[in-house]
Amino acid sequence: MKNTFGTSVAVTIFGESHGAMIGAVVDGLAPGIPVDAAFIAAQLTLRRPAGRISTARQEQDAFQIVSGVFEGKTTGTPLCILIPNTQTKSKDYAATRALARPGHADLTAYCKYHGFEDYRGGGHFSGRITAALVAAGAVALTALQGKGIRIGTHVARCAGIADRKFEDLAADIAALGTKSFAVLDEAAGQAMQTAIAAAAQEGDSVGGILETAVTGMPAGVGEPWFDTLEGILSHALFSIPAVKGVQFGDAFDLIDAKGSEFNDPFCMDGGTVTTATNHNGGINGGITNGMPLQFRCAVKPTPSIYKPQETVDLFRQENAVLQIEGRHDPAIIHRARVVVDSVTALALCDVLAGRFGTDWLA
Amino acid sequence: MKNTFGTSVAVTIFGESHGAMIGAVVDGLAPGIPVDAAFIAAQLTLRRPAGRISTARQEQDAFQIVSGVFEGKTTGTPLCILIPNTQTKSKDYAATRALARPGHADLTAYCKYHGFEDYRGGGHFSGRITAALVAAGAVALTALQGKGIRIGTHVARCAGIADRKFEDLAADIAALGTKSFAVLDEAAGQAMQTAIAAAAQEGDSVGGILETAVTGMPAGVGEPWFDTLEGILSHALFSIPAVKGVQFGDAFDLIDAKGSEFNDPFCMDGGTVTTATNHNGGINGGITNGMPLQFRCAVKPTPSIYKPQETVDLFRQENAVLQIEGRHDPAIIHRARVVVDSVTALALCDVLAGRFGTDWLA
Amino acid sequence: MKNTFGTSVAVTIFGESHGAMIGAVVDGLAPGIPVDAAFIAAQLTLRRPAGRISTARQEQDAFQIVSGVFEGKTTGTPLCILIPNTQTKSKDYAATRALARPGHADLTAYCKYHGFEDYRGGGHFSGRITAALVAAGAVALTALQGKGIRIGTHVARCAGIADRKFEDLAADIAALGTKSFAVLDEAAGQAMQTAIAAAAQEGDSVGGILETAVTGMPAGVGEPWFDTLEGILSHALFSIPAVKGVQFGDAFDLIDAKGSEFNDPFCMDGGTVTTATNHNGGINGGITNGMPLQFRCAVKPTPSIYKPQETVDLFRQENAVLQIEGRHDPAIIHRARVVVDSVTALALCDVLAGRFGTDWLA
Amino acid sequence: MKNTFGTSVAVTIFGESHGAMIGAVVDGLAPGIPVDAAFIAAQLTLRRPAGRISTARQEQDAFQIVSGVFEGKTTGTPLCILIPNTQTKSKDYAATRALARPGHADLTAYCKYHGFEDYRGGGHFSGRITAALVAAGAVALTALQGKGIRIGTHVARCAGIADRKFEDLAADIAALGTKSFAVLDEAAGQAMQTAIAAAAQEGDSVGGILETAVTGMPAGVGEPWFDTLEGILSHALFSIPAVKGVQFGDAFDLIDAKGSEFNDPFCMDGGTVTTATNHNGGINGGITNGMPLQFRCAVKPTPSIYKPQETVDLFRQENAVLQIEGRHDPAIIHRARVVVDSVTALALCDVLAGRFGTDWLA
Repeated sequence: MKNTFGTSVAVTIFGESHGAMIGAVVDGLAPGIPVDAAFIAAQLTLRRPAGRISTARQEQDAFQIVSGVFEGKTTGTPLCILIPNTQTKSKDYAATRALARPGHADLTAYCKYHGFEDYRGGGHFSGRITAALVAAGAVALTALQGKGIRIGTHVARCAGIADRKFEDLAADIAALGTKSFAVLDEAAGQAMQTAIAAAAQEGDSVGGILETAVTGMPAGVGEPWFDTLEGILSHALFSIPAVKGVQFGDAFDLIDAKGSEFNDPFCMDGGTVTTATNHNGGINGGITNGMPLQFRCAVKPTPSIYKPQETVDLFRQENAVLQIEGRHDPAIIHRARVVVDSVTALALCDVLAGRFGTDWLA
Repeated sequence: MKNTFGTSVAVTIFGESHGAMIGAVVDGLAPGIPVDAAFIAAQLTLRRPAGRISTARQEQDAFQIVSGVFEGKTTGTPLCILIPNTQTKSKDYAATRALARPGHADLTAYCKYHGFEDYRGGGHFSGRITAALVAAGAVALTALQGKGIRIGTHVARCAGIADRKFEDLAADIAALGTKSFAVLDEAAGQAMQTAIAAAAQEGDSVGGILETAVTGMPAGVGEPWFDTLEGILSHALFSIPAVKGVQFGDAFDLIDAKGSEFNDPFCMDGGTVTTATNHNGGINGGITNGMPLQFRCAVKPTPSIYKPQETVDLFRQENAVLQIEGRHDPAIIHRARVVVDSVTALALCDVLAGRFGTDWLA
Repeated sequence: MKNTFGTSVAVTIFGESHGAMIGAVVDGLAPGIPVDAAFIAAQLTLRRPAGRISTARQEQDAFQIVSGVFEGKTTGTPLCILIPNTQTKSKDYAATRALARPGHADLTAYCKYHGFEDYRGGGHFSGRITAALVAAGAVALTALQGKGIRIGTHVARCAGIADRKFEDLAADIAALGTKSFAVLDEAAGQAMQTAIAAAAQEGDSVGGILETAVTGMPAGVGEPWFDTLEGILSHALFSIPAVKGVQFGDAFDLIDAKGSEFNDPFCMDGGTVTTATNHNGGINGGITNGMPLQFRCAVKPTPSIYKPQETVDLFRQENAVLQIEGRHDPAIIHRARVVVDSVTALALCDVLAGRFGTDWLA
Repeated sequence: MKNTFGTSVAVTIFGESHGAMIGAVVDGLAPGIPVDAAFIAAQLTLRRPAGRISTARQEQDAFQIVSGVFEGKTTGTPLCILIPNTQTKSKDYAATRALARPGHADLTAYCKYHGFEDYRGGGHFSGRITAALVAAGAVALTALQGKGIRIGTHVARCAGIADRKFEDLAADIAALGTKSFAVLDEAAGQAMQTAIAAAAQEGDSVGGILETAVTGMPAGVGEPWFDTLEGILSHALFSIPAVKGVQFGDAFDLIDAKGSEFNDPFCMDGGTVTTATNHNGGINGGITNGMPLQFRCAVKPTPSIYKPQETVDLFRQENAVLQIEGRHDPAIIHRARVVVDSVTALALCDVLAGRFGTDWLA
């Protein structure tokens, strides 16, 4: 389905970096979910670049909801959110159009779209389009919140510096809230930002790991084969630009462990089955077990760097050297965290509505 | 779609560990693909347990293709492969039915299916069902081979021991061929098997990392959002039991690198655009760039261990101690490699048929 | 998705007329639905040819359920039903292989599958495959019955002879039950069968109209656009061979009416909104209104006739005359009625599980 | 997928009659298809009400394409078209909000959306939303035209008056072109319009039959089961408001015919297989046979009439009498014909791109 994700709750996104607008259509939301423009705006702010460690392009993200909301609540019919592009400087891109930027989709777009693609600023591949995901995800997050489900993501690692792990999930998720650089340990966050700034100084970029926790998910959601919860979530998460790896629970981190160490023993906690450890990230056999979901996304360093790079000229089919101009981020990991939350929320709304029916999220 | 994966080429699987048969339906295959029973049998042998490091359950996997093949070739209509279960010892499971095995899907199945699930031997969650994937995947592998696309997977790490990396992909993939324990460095493989046997001796289990390479994929396949090639492949790969992490290219392994290190510079190689490095695993912006696909799957240690484990009694809702009986593998990673190849082949057939039309794979 | 239909409850079918077996996989059924082998067998009997007005091929339809049922109930995992083919006389078909039978899919199969199709007896296009739909549909019918939803179909018209219309739906649906020639007016049914026999005598065939009623559907099921209940049902119904038209309510029959005649006025009936008439067939704006669903399927005359027919030789690409041999039905409408019930039940299970969640049908 | 239709080429629609805008996203279009704003505008004009036989609401349909088009051609990424609503008079509806209009979706929307629906002017159920389908369909029509595929629809019957049948398809389709009241026989068209005006005079409405022909479709497109071409097209067509019946070829019209009459004999015509008659509407076994597609849609009379109607008050749950105010059409069949063309074009683009690959339509 390409630019549409989900079955029971489906999100469709559209737009190019330098087109008139970008946007999203969310279909299948239960009727009656409150739609809070201030919350959507706050989420968009989390994604928006800010300060010395971000691109100079500043979009106001003056979104407009043109359908699917009536008297402040979802109607149950498709909700369309539009976000105009205003800060487009297309002339930055024309000069280097033929030069495929390494790590970017210029070459692959050319192979797929045969030169008809809008090449300006990455076109439809631009991280700009994630603003539409964030706006759509804000509504999904509100719906989940109404059912007691909370999502929080922090920069677990950046430029070689590690944040502390999640401890008290409720408190940690609440604390991450509207932090513009979401870490659990502020000192680590300061060190990361210093390292990002240093990379920027060199015309280079850095990446890292985003770690996400979801509390309140009911047990019994997901499928044994193919539509495992891991499969659904990873499918969604890998569409976030720069995400190149996804693990649930401890996966790669405990890869040398024995079964006796990795298995999470069950125990009764009051009337509920729980696990002492959560190495499986809240999922057994593709299905939620009632423990918090935990997963980590590897975010590669931003491919837009200012150092000269070897590449090819797509039109002349010859080697060339590229010197990128324009406005770019030395790191997008801190901006990507709200995208992870948003995409996660949309995917979870989909599986929950599929499991419990279309009215459940209201 | 639960137990069905794919759109243009779709595979549906069914069966339980101790039911009459398991099987797969593959729909959307181009007409005219040769179906080689000997190759299917050989692939099933790769998945079948063997030797001291495997379960004692021995299935002959006497598969039967009951539709979709005529005069040795695919017809283009749904191909159904059936594999009878013969070595079922259901009484092994009745005694401990109520005790949720840690790391397994017993608890989650109970939450989802309310006790109606076939609990014997993991039922529909059993690794046994992967035999159906392997049989179906064998046909997909043949189709891809006809188009010059080769897939190879090795045990890159097991029980803390590392295999060497891929070097000459064509030679390495060919060499992996029908190895029962697929490593590139036989010494490493011997050390791994010794470690597996040692874990078995302790009643414990181990996991590791499977690394896959795919050569010959045309550039321009995949989608920018949601149906990125990473998203499609990971969706499929996470349904392999025990896979808890998937990364493309170097992701987590190079997470501290700078953009200037992670970007793969393009260069002309004859008339073709290629990259000097392949940190992005052959995918930019969700789309193949013509380089080999490379990805790694984290395979957690087999959850079935013989050590006593703390758990809960699902019926009495009280704490209990579980001592697993039955026949189990101290490691499944070497058996899982052909499952990875199979699932990868099925997913690639799907995206290729979607991109180039339903006859392309013939 | 080709041979798979449905999202929340999905059915996949496979098989060829002269292959080893045909079958169906039904995925997404709620756990705990009783599976009654005797009822499945009875439904298959309704589809099976009988008497002077049917083909001489007699299959026992000795079906086997190989997965998804445990201790007499659905498990919630995919249910696979297999039905062996035993009465295959493939030599009937070899002689006329090259001659495309008019009204059949021989030509179109050849265009689509390039000669790789199993041509014997219509191959995958054969009405034989509807036995798999009937077996699968029987489970769906049981699930619906558990929720108070009843489906009945009668031969409303055949060979120019009309049955009476539905009157008391509950009584009429019950009466249709296991009739081998399902009419509401037995005299009309006798006249139809006489007309069928007369057509058979001439080496010709007849068609007609099947009319279906569904009682007990909750209001509020269906979607305003695309996945209207009419769209979903017609999508499923048109895959029944020979169905070439579908109408809901009175559609073509009242095509010259005014709005004041066609609109169904609402009125309170006890505490429930009902309509005095049902010209809209229980659906407004694509969504059930709580009234019975009513629709009619146009079933074209069976294309297999014994009269000489002009056609082309596909291999020689020249005109030819075809004289069909083999065993064929002069009418299939009375056998198709249980297929309509089955397909309707599967489609309704899908929309109901999507609307109310995967456990609703249990 | 609710408000999304299609797999290879998918259209998503959104909007309400009295919301800010309506629109459509079309995904999966081949890159390089010319996008002609004048043609889109012309198609929208065909749908727009005009003259004494239409509603007084006049929208300019000043559409804007905000993504997916670059330098006049499709990019291959999602194309979003927005159409603002300007002529909304919402106060017309508030007074009668509680009174479910017979034949409309007010009751069913209330059952499905629990009162959260935008009730003004039919909300998301309004025929207004078909403008988005027409705009999207215009691009699909252009793509098909580039491959030699032409679609034409005429008012075959209205208010009891019949148009002549299709004769010379190429000439007839060309002649229908931009007629505001599309008939093949102008005298019949005048009589129909007179009858519509007479019905309007009485405060009543009329319906009829739209007949469509498609030339140039390659043979071998469609699937044997479920995704038959009839199933795909009917699924799409039934989402057009007021369409309650769909038949392919002669279906209901020749329901009393014998097989020898209904079968279309094949014959060679030059190097091509053709049929002398086309009772099967160009489709055998769910797959195109190379002959023109022909189908008919039953369009029920517009439910909005000015006569007093019996209904219920949804809030008070009691009987009531409704006197509709506002601006309504005494017939929509002539406006619906361009919607049929549009929906048909979108569905055919989907099946063609699925069959021949995503670049085929360029």
